[in-house]
Amino acid sequence: MASVWLQKAKLAVLLLILEVVFIVLFALTTDYEDSAKPPASLHVKQGNDSQATHVGGHGDSHSGPGPVATYYPMFQDVHVMIFVGFGFLMTFLRRYGFSSVGLNMLVAAVAIQWAMLVAGYLHGHGGKVHVGVTTLLTADFAAASVLITMGALLGKTSPLQLVVICLLEIVFFAVNEWVGLSVLQVADVGGSMFVHAFGAYFGLAVSRVLYKEDVTKSKIEGSVYHSDIFAMIGTIFLWLFWPSFNSALAVEDAQHRAVINTYLALAACCVVTFAVSSLTDQHGKFDMVHVQNATLAGGVAVGTSADMMIGTHGALIIGSVAGALSVIGYKYITPFLSSKLKIHDTCGVHNLHGMPAILAAIAGCIASLLADTDSYGYTLYRQFPPRVPSNESSLEFQMIKQHMDVEPGLGRTGSQQAAFQIAALGITLLVAIVGGLLVGVIVRFVPLNQPRGLYLFEDKDNWEVPEDPSEVGAPLLHAKGETETALLKA
Amino acid sequence: MASVWLQKAKLAVLLLILEVVFIVLFALTTDYEDSAKPPASLHVKQGNDSQATHVGGHGDSHSGPGPVATYYPMFQDVHVMIFVGFGFLMTFLRRYGFSSVGLNMLVAAVAIQWAMLVAGYLHGHGGKVHVGVTTLLTADFAAASVLITMGALLGKTSPLQLVVICLLEIVFFAVNEWVGLSVLQVADVGGSMFVHAFGAYFGLAVSRVLYKEDVTKSKIEGSVYHSDIFAMIGTIFLWLFWPSFNSALAVEDAQHRAVINTYLALAACCVVTFAVSSLTDQHGKFDMVHVQNATLAGGVAVGTSADMMIGTHGALIIGSVAGALSVIGYKYITPFLSSKLKIHDTCGVHNLHGMPAILAAIAGCIASLLADTDSYGYTLYRQFPPRVPSNESSLEFQMIKQHMDVEPGLGRTGSQQAAFQIAALGITLLVAIVGGLLVGVIVRFVPLNQPRGLYLFEDKDNWEVPEDPSEVGAPLLHAKGETETALLKA
Amino acid sequence: MASVWLQKAKLAVLLLILEVVFIVLFALTTDYEDSAKPPASLHVKQGNDSQATHVGGHGDSHSGPGPVATYYPMFQDVHVMIFVGFGFLMTFLRRYGFSSVGLNMLVAAVAIQWAMLVAGYLHGHGGKVHVGVTTLLTADFAAASVLITMGALLGKTSPLQLVVICLLEIVFFAVNEWVGLSVLQVADVGGSMFVHAFGAYFGLAVSRVLYKEDVTKSKIEGSVYHSDIFAMIGTIFLWLFWPSFNSALAVEDAQHRAVINTYLALAACCVVTFAVSSLTDQHGKFDMVHVQNATLAGGVAVGTSADMMIGTHGALIIGSVAGALSVIGYKYITPFLSSKLKIHDTCGVHNLHGMPAILAAIAGCIASLLADTDSYGYTLYRQFPPRVPSNESSLEFQMIKQHMDVEPGLGRTGSQQAAFQIAALGITLLVAIVGGLLVGVIVRFVPLNQPRGLYLFEDKDNWEVPEDPSEVGAPLLHAKGETETALLKA
Repeated sequence: MASVWLQKAKLAVLLLILEVVFIVLFALTTDYEDSAKPPASLHVKQGNDSQATHVGGHGDSHSGPGPVATYYPMFQDVHVMIFVGFGFLMTFLRRYGFSSVGLNMLVAAVAIQWAMLVAGYLHGHGGKVHVGVTTLLTADFAAASVLITMGALLGKTSPLQLVVICLLEIVFFAVNEWVGLSVLQVADVGGSMFVHAFGAYFGLAVSRVLYKEDVTKSKIEGSVYHSDIFAMIGTIFLWLFWPSFNSALAVEDAQHRAVINTYLALAACCVVTFAVSSLTDQHGKFDMVHVQNATLAGGVAVGTSADMMIGTHGALIIGSVAGALSVIGYKYITPFLSSKLKIHDTCGVHNLHGMPAILAAIAGCIASLLADTDSYGYTLYRQFPPRVPSNESSLEFQMIKQHMDVEPGLGRTGSQQAAFQIAALGITLLVAIVGGLLVGVIVRFVPLNQPRGLYLFEDKDNWEVPEDPSEVGAPLLHAKGETETALLKA
Repeated sequence: MASVWLQKAKLAVLLLILEVVFIVLFALTTDYEDSAKPPASLHVKQGNDSQATHVGGHGDSHSGPGPVATYYPMFQDVHVMIFVGFGFLMTFLRRYGFSSVGLNMLVAAVAIQWAMLVAGYLHGHGGKVHVGVTTLLTADFAAASVLITMGALLGKTSPLQLVVICLLEIVFFAVNEWVGLSVLQVADVGGSMFVHAFGAYFGLAVSRVLYKEDVTKSKIEGSVYHSDIFAMIGTIFLWLFWPSFNSALAVEDAQHRAVINTYLALAACCVVTFAVSSLTDQHGKFDMVHVQNATLAGGVAVGTSADMMIGTHGALIIGSVAGALSVIGYKYITPFLSSKLKIHDTCGVHNLHGMPAILAAIAGCIASLLADTDSYGYTLYRQFPPRVPSNESSLEFQMIKQHMDVEPGLGRTGSQQAAFQIAALGITLLVAIVGGLLVGVIVRFVPLNQPRGLYLFEDKDNWEVPEDPSEVGAPLLHAKGETETALLKA
Repeated sequence: MASVWLQKAKLAVLLLILEVVFIVLFALTTDYEDSAKPPASLHVKQGNDSQATHVGGHGDSHSGPGPVATYYPMFQDVHVMIFVGFGFLMTFLRRYGFSSVGLNMLVAAVAIQWAMLVAGYLHGHGGKVHVGVTTLLTADFAAASVLITMGALLGKTSPLQLVVICLLEIVFFAVNEWVGLSVLQVADVGGSMFVHAFGAYFGLAVSRVLYKEDVTKSKIEGSVYHSDIFAMIGTIFLWLFWPSFNSALAVEDAQHRAVINTYLALAACCVVTFAVSSLTDQHGKFDMVHVQNATLAGGVAVGTSADMMIGTHGALIIGSVAGALSVIGYKYITPFLSSKLKIHDTCGVHNLHGMPAILAAIAGCIASLLADTDSYGYTLYRQFPPRVPSNESSLEFQMIKQHMDVEPGLGRTGSQQAAFQIAALGITLLVAIVGGLLVGVIVRFVPLNQPRGLYLFEDKDNWEVPEDPSEVGAPLLHAKGETETALLKA
């Protein structure tokens, strides 16, 4: 028993050290962003300052609604997606519900703190990292990426492995996102490339390295009736709030468009998912796995182009294709990946996030290619800042300048922007796969309590689990009279 | 087996055709609404336009918060009601949880796309249908109506029947709503008449036509312990967000009032529901069916008058009466409808939506009758536009004109408005019942896979269902060794 | 049977009388607040008023967003916490899920109506109680306090007892809060002292008085696998929306800060909870009770100082300490309270609300002590109004007056304010414990159907419960063939 305790205590000690490190780093390197501090105009100065600003709506806050009013409602929708959505979506496993919703919470809580720091250091300009409601929002996005990775690994990794993966993945994630947004300057409003494709292929790479034969022999990888309904809690909240995910950081008409396009893509995706699920079933029935997952693929697939002028029908088409693609993935590609390529993907993140994200990148590429001032007017340059002419004295730049506050850009054409969009996908896949393989090697060969045999897909490895009368007769550990330590070494 | 597959494939094919039709219709007949497109002032014109407008808050968006800021939070509350609320409320059935939450999602996803088109064509002025966040909101309202209908039919109809009903019902719904709002010009801010009464009586009419004896013999129409708790997820989210449903489209002080009145009506309704549920039980206990449903009746019952000056006590009274009425409905009226009138109402929508909606119409009628400028000031004419005098040169019209931008109205008195309110209820009931009977005949006699016998209230008819150890011994299909095709013909 | 019915009918009759009393009191003593009524400028006056105000955004509403836009989204988050959060958190008990989520709803529905009246009378100035969206919000806060009390008593009290406790507790709650906010003028933006400490210690005091030996002998006080997952629905929604709870009533930069601090405190608390839960378990595993509850302690512990300048690291430290403290409470203090002090605490509210709230008060005291114009600028006087100088003609007052609309205050120093903060905690504990003991005596000795023996932690005492195949073999009432009336007298 003591040795089991010691093994598990490794994670506990890591978590405590981690939290101390977070506290120190936040103390030394972060500060509230300006709008979360008393306004400078209200600082107490010596003497009588002539331009007094009043507390209470007449001062700094006069220039429009503050960041809480602007971002908080959509931030909370995204927050629900991360913790309720992802958490419950993974509870479909019959004996892994505690881990699904519990470890989802733990990993996300680590991810959001760490992501604020790492992204802050990368995007920062040497000064302190400024923390505000948009920081919380982007930290949640980063957590989403890690949780997608967790979906590929669900039931096959220890909590300790998951936390280590989280810490390392956040770094790769932040670098890749920084390259895409700041270097390549591509558009990806819903993070389909930087969050979904990245998280999925990173997870699949880790899964490949961790692959062991045991996984194919588990008798409890699967759902029971009630666990499938728990999972639908996650599905529905993800489906509902995806428009917020794709539009939270968009502005003005583009934000409105992102809401509409995501709503429509999801509706179409849902309809097509049911159709293809039935068509590919030998009895013509629906498969709960498809409804839980493929219905969401439309949200991923429209994520890069959601704020572009793709038209309402464009959104429907993207959503429809995503639904079909995702069901086909669950039906034919996941078994292939598992049996032939030894890539076991517990939640099918390749179908829900991976392939739809590639579709998203392609749709974003096409929409970028077609984008011009006929459809966007001068907002073209807000939507694609690199398309602003680089020559400040050109007539074109002067005309744009009349309509918006703008810095000289890179003078890209539509096809150049489209090429950069695809390049960003390529780099993302490269970083994700290479990073995932590296991290996989680390967490496989460092002794981090990877579960084996009967501990796969089994909460009892990590949780004190109450007896459940409904599971009598199911292939549980205790029912078999096997001791836990014996099994752990199996 | 092949014949089963072919039967089921009818739905899949219908869904695929439908989605293609939606894509074509959206492409040809819809467009984003103005605030979801680049502002006209930022269109690129030839030459140098002298009145430049700046991107980024200084241009068109200066005249107040945009539609996303204004409508999105309440839209999302309503969205949660439609997909989580209705979906989980119906999971109370022990063997129909997949269908409840899954088909709820499918039917709603069809309904929202179709409703945007149909309502757009009806309300449009020949041009393209403009899609914005309020379009999404009203599409969700239309879906609510169809889902209420589905509640009456739950467990007794095939997915194919439900989709066909949805397509037809949306047309009747949209026409009836258009008559009520545009022709009769009545007030119904929470859609109690046009959504709740319509959906409930339409569903009851369909149910009457579809009635077969089998329904009374099912041994699995009912809940188990856990399924009742799943249903409470739906109940609570509906209860919480109902103030958003009733106030999302109201403005200014009327919106604030609608929030308050709905909150109070629901609180009172909850208290009275528990009391009457206990009083009418032979052991004095509470009945979960009442708590799941009757607690919500207050939201329906205050829906027509929520934004009117009914007083806080008025809201409490309406909510209290609704709770009592609804419990009595479940206890005494539903069994009567089923046994005597052969109207089987699975979720008791007559009690949660039907009767409370009639109460709502009566309350709205009374509140309209009493409405005058003493209590409303000049906002009387914003609340009831037909009460604006028709004679533009009258002194009264001139005085109103000084206070608000107003078109000449119909010069209705309070009692005339009240009469129109009740007329709208009558027409709604008529359209719902006649439409429901017609649609019932269609879906009964066209071969649309209506389930029979052991397939009633049973997910296995439509879903690949995992084995559930907790259901061993329950009257399941496979336990009986009966073949599915045999049963389907039973 | 009739005598059972009569016993239960006591509650039903009380509820009906109560609702009638509420209706009368609301009719006589309340009104909508101004922004929920037609604006005065639109009242119809005789003659032609020269200063006409237009309906529709050009009149009274011009001075910023209205209360619905400002408060409604966060109010709804809090509303979800009260009804979904508390309700589902308590469903962890294997046979008490109906009561947990159902009675939570009933008690809260009584509490919010009663709290509006009681708080309105206390804070009012003789006139009518004005009801607006902030009234609904503070009513929800009051309900939270009662539901925390209910958590201590869960499974051991009849619905009738709970309603009586609710009615009495709300009065003590409102008086204590009024003393704290209006007399002592302390800061407690998230209600950690006035809601959490109060509710917890009030509940523990009632529990002490109600203590009977039976409680220690129950075989069904505990969870099953699925009920623990239901409880996580409550946990996650509480965890997600706690930033709204702590910031809903804060303003400007302080509101933004409260969001950030609460988010960070909860993230840190979650990480530390998992660590300490594992370390204190003999097998190094996680305990679901800790994850369900202790992860939330950070939200309580940062509640008093959330809007103060505690720094991001301050929030992390407070959250971390709270998580550790709470787990240790569940592990060692709750068993001690139960066995030695005869204080049985079903949900462990002492660990989730009680001790973390004391921590909150201490953190708030320290933050108040350190607060000065260096860190707050002139907003110091918005944050701590009693620190405004009392002498209106002093130079200091004049300088403050230049920056904000301010009334003369009490001229408190930082250390004086800190002392008052701690005094408020002391008074809160005193009122809670004395009030709880008094109320406990009332509900114990007045015959209010307190459950005994096999009726403890058992829904069948209060609900018509469907048979559940998964519970066959569990120690249920009917399985034992015992008559209910016999048991009731046990």
